[in-house]
Amino acid sequence: MATNESVPLRIFSLNCWGLRYVSKNREERMVMIGDKLSRENHDIVLLQEVWSEKDFLYLKKTLSSTHPHSYNFKSGVIGSGLAVFSRHRILDVFFYRFSVNGYPYMIHQGDWFGGKAVGMVQMKINGLMAHVYVTHFHAEYCRERDIYLPHRVVQAWELQQFIRHTSRGADLVIVGGDLNTHPQDLGCRLVRAYTGLRDSYTETDAFDGCENGLTLIAKNPYVSAKELGPFEEGIRIDYILFRGSKCVEVKCESLSITQGSCPGQAIPLSDHEALSAQLLLVPTDPNRQKREPESSEENTGKLAELVDLVTEARTEVKVGVHCAERQRHRAARTGAMGLALLLLELAMALVPWLLPASAAATQPFPRGSFCLLGALCFCLLLLATLLWVFHSGEIKALRSADDQMRLAAASLLDEHRGRTPTPTRHAHGDSPANQHAGSTSKED
Amino acid sequence: MATNESVPLRIFSLNCWGLRYVSKNREERMVMIGDKLSRENHDIVLLQEVWSEKDFLYLKKTLSSTHPHSYNFKSGVIGSGLAVFSRHRILDVFFYRFSVNGYPYMIHQGDWFGGKAVGMVQMKINGLMAHVYVTHFHAEYCRERDIYLPHRVVQAWELQQFIRHTSRGADLVIVGGDLNTHPQDLGCRLVRAYTGLRDSYTETDAFDGCENGLTLIAKNPYVSAKELGPFEEGIRIDYILFRGSKCVEVKCESLSITQGSCPGQAIPLSDHEALSAQLLLVPTDPNRQKREPESSEENTGKLAELVDLVTEARTEVKVGVHCAERQRHRAARTGAMGLALLLLELAMALVPWLLPASAAATQPFPRGSFCLLGALCFCLLLLATLLWVFHSGEIKALRSADDQMRLAAASLLDEHRGRTPTPTRHAHGDSPANQHAGSTSKED
Repeated sequence: MATNESVPLRIFSLNCWGLRYVSKNREERMVMIGDKLSRENHDIVLLQEVWSEKDFLYLKKTLSSTHPHSYNFKSGVIGSGLAVFSRHRILDVFFYRFSVNGYPYMIHQGDWFGGKAVGMVQMKINGLMAHVYVTHFHAEYCRERDIYLPHRVVQAWELQQFIRHTSRGADLVIVGGDLNTHPQDLGCRLVRAYTGLRDSYTETDAFDGCENGLTLIAKNPYVSAKELGPFEEGIRIDYILFRGSKCVEVKCESLSITQGSCPGQAIPLSDHEALSAQLLLVPTDPNRQKREPESSEENTGKLAELVDLVTEARTEVKVGVHCAERQRHRAARTGAMGLALLLLELAMALVPWLLPASAAATQPFPRGSFCLLGALCFCLLLLATLLWVFHSGEIKALRSADDQMRLAAASLLDEHRGRTPTPTRHAHGDSPANQHAGSTSKED
Repeated sequence: MATNESVPLRIFSLNCWGLRYVSKNREERMVMIGDKLSRENHDIVLLQEVWSEKDFLYLKKTLSSTHPHSYNFKSGVIGSGLAVFSRHRILDVFFYRFSVNGYPYMIHQGDWFGGKAVGMVQMKINGLMAHVYVTHFHAEYCRERDIYLPHRVVQAWELQQFIRHTSRGADLVIVGGDLNTHPQDLGCRLVRAYTGLRDSYTETDAFDGCENGLTLIAKNPYVSAKELGPFEEGIRIDYILFRGSKCVEVKCESLSITQGSCPGQAIPLSDHEALSAQLLLVPTDPNRQKREPESSEENTGKLAELVDLVTEARTEVKVGVHCAERQRHRAARTGAMGLALLLLELAMALVPWLLPASAAATQPFPRGSFCLLGALCFCLLLLATLLWVFHSGEIKALRSADDQMRLAAASLLDEHRGRTPTPTRHAHGDSPANQHAGSTSKED
C-alpha cells in the first residue's frame, strides 16, 4: 500500500433498465443517471442493463472528467449490458459468459439475447490490486414455478468459480450486480459461501434505504405488484459484495439505497434501486498473523455448510437436466412427426406416377393443401432440429456444472474425513471458505 | 516442495480423432490408445477429440489402475472432446468455452458443434500446485483462404487470457493440445509471448520424432496430401508447453513424437501424432533472487514485440468483423427479400376478395405454386433471421476481443513510454512477458 492510512472507496451499482424501445423514459433516465454519477463522484461505478451502445457512449462522454476509465462488456446478440466506469485506471479486463442463460424462443423475455455474464476489471487503488466484478443473472419471472432456477444456480456456480480462480493475486475483491436472487436463495448463498465475500448490506455501519435493504420496491412506479408476487414491499436482489486480503482489511462504513424517485425528480433512475457503498480500506501489516487459526469445530461446520450447499445445488441442476431432456425428447418427437408426414406426402406425390393414366387424372389431393402441408412439415422439421440442437447444448452445460459440483462435493467430504490436508501456500488473500473450495476438489 | 530433489514429470498429449461414424478405425484405435497409456504410465494425459462419452468411459476404465483421476470437459452439442487422465488427484477444475468457433451451418466441418474450449485441472505434484490446461482450436481447412483465422486468433487471445488470469497461484503451468496453428503463426506466438510458456519441442534436451517436430505428417495413412497443402512432409500443430515459477524450475529432458504407426501396429493411434514429454521439476530456493533483472533494452524489445503482436491480432480480428458484418448484411437482405415476397403473396391472395365476383373466378395464380412460393418465402425469412442473430453474436464476440486487445495495446504503449511503473508485487510465478501483459492494460 502506498500509504499506511485508511483509504475510503465509494462503489455504485445499478441495474439501469436500458432496453431500447421497451424500457420507459430510457433516455431521460440515462441523463439522470449521468448527472447523478458525475455529481456524486464514486470511485467505481458498476452498471447492468446498459444494452444500448448509444447509452454507454453517452455515459462515457458525460463521465469523461469524473470517471475517465470505462469498459463495456460485449456479449450475446444485444450485449451483456455490463459496464464499468472508474476513477482509477483499468489495467486489464477478462470476461466469462455463463454457459446457460434461458431460451432463445422466449423472445418476449429476451434474457438469452443478452448473453448474461460476469466481467472483471483490474485496477490499482492506492497501491492495492483490486479485482472488480460486475455481473447480471437471468431474471426470475415466476417464483412459484421458476423454470430458470437451474440456469441461475449454474450461473451462481460459474460466478463463484470465476471469482475464485481469477482473484488469487488480488488484494481487494469487489463484486456488484443484479443477481436476481434473494439473500437466502441458493444462488446467493453459493456465491458467498464459496468466495468468502461479505455483503455490504449486512456489514455496513450505517444504512440508508428501505427496510431489509430492498432494491426492487413496490413504491417504484416502474415496478408492478405482479413482479413482486408475495413480497408486497419489495425484494433484495442487487448486491455490492467485497473481500479484503491479508494486506488490507475492508470495512463498509455506509450503504445507501435509493427509494424510488430521488428528491426533486419526477421519475426514478430505473426500475431497480441504486446501491452506493462507502468502503474503508484499512492497511494491515502483511507479516503479522492476523487471524486466529480456526478451531476444528468451526472448520467442520463450514465444510458441512458447503457440502449441504453443493448437494442442494446439484439437486436443482439435476431438475434442470431432467427438464432439458424432456424438452429435447419433445423436439425429437416433433421432428420425427414432421419427417414422417413429409415422407408420407412424398409417397402421395408419387401416386400419380405409379397409377395408370386414367386413375392418375383423378388425383384425390387438392394441390394447394398438399403444398401447404408439405411446407408445414418442412418448417416443423427445421424448428424441431434447431430445438434439439439447442437443448442438447443445454444438457451438456448443465451436466458439466453437475460434474464440477460432484468433484467439489467429493473433495469437501474428503477434507472432512481429514484425508486431504488443508493447503496453506495458496491461500493468500483468500477467505477460509475459499481455501476449502479452491484447493481440495476431487477427481471425477 | 515436499523434497528438495528433482522430480520427473511425464506428460502425454494426443488429438485422438474420435468422431463417431466418421473417424476410421475409431474403436480399434481407442483400444490401442488405452493400451499404450496404461503401459507407458505418464503422470498426466491430455486428450483432444474424445467426442464420444463411450470412448471416455472406456479409457477411464482401462486406465483406472494407472490413472485413477480423470475429467471430461462437456461443452457444445457433442462435447468439447477434451479429457484429462492423471496419476495425481485432481483438486479443482474450471472451463472456458471460446466465444467464437466457426459456423453452425458448416455441418460437414462440425467444429461449431464441439464447443471448442480450454479446460483447466489443478493438482498437487510433490507439494507443488500444478495448473494443467488442455485445449483445442478451430481447424484450419484451407490455409490460402482461411476464413476461420479471425476465430482462431480470438481463441488464442482468450486462451492466453484464461491462462494468465487463472494461473496466478500456480507453481507449475502445463498446457497441452491441438492449437491448429503452426509455431510461427500469429495464434501460437500470441499465446507464448503473453503467457511466457516454453515450447517442449524447442526446449528439449533430447528429441525423437519427425524432423521439425511435425505432428500431422504425410506418412500417417489417415492424413491426405490435400490436408497438408504446400507442406509436403507435414505440419506442427500439437504442443506441450510449460512454465515454472520462482519456487520450481522446469526443464524438458526429452520429447518424443510418434511417426505414424507404432512398431508392430498396422494402424497409427490417430491422424495426429502423439507427444510425450519428460519434464524435470527442479526445486529452487524461493528466497534466492534467481533472475537478473532485465535490462532496459530487453524490456523495451519485449514490449515492442507484444505491441506488434497485438496490432497484428487486431488486424485479423477486424477482418473477421468485416466478414461477419458482410454475412449479417447478406442475411438481412435475404430476410427482407423473403418478407417482401411474402407480403406480395399476401396481396395477391387478397386479389380475389377485392375484385368483382366474375373477375375473381378467373384467378390467374395456380394455387399449388402459390402455396409453394409462400412456404419458400417463410423458410427464407426464418433462416435469414437465424443467420442474422448468429452473425450478430459473432460480431459482438469479435468486437469484444478487439476491445480487450485495444486496451492491452494502449497499456503496453503506456508502459513503453514509462508512464506506468512495472508492477512487481503481483509477478509471483509469472514470466516477464506476463507481468507486462497482466497488469498494465489501459482503459477502453
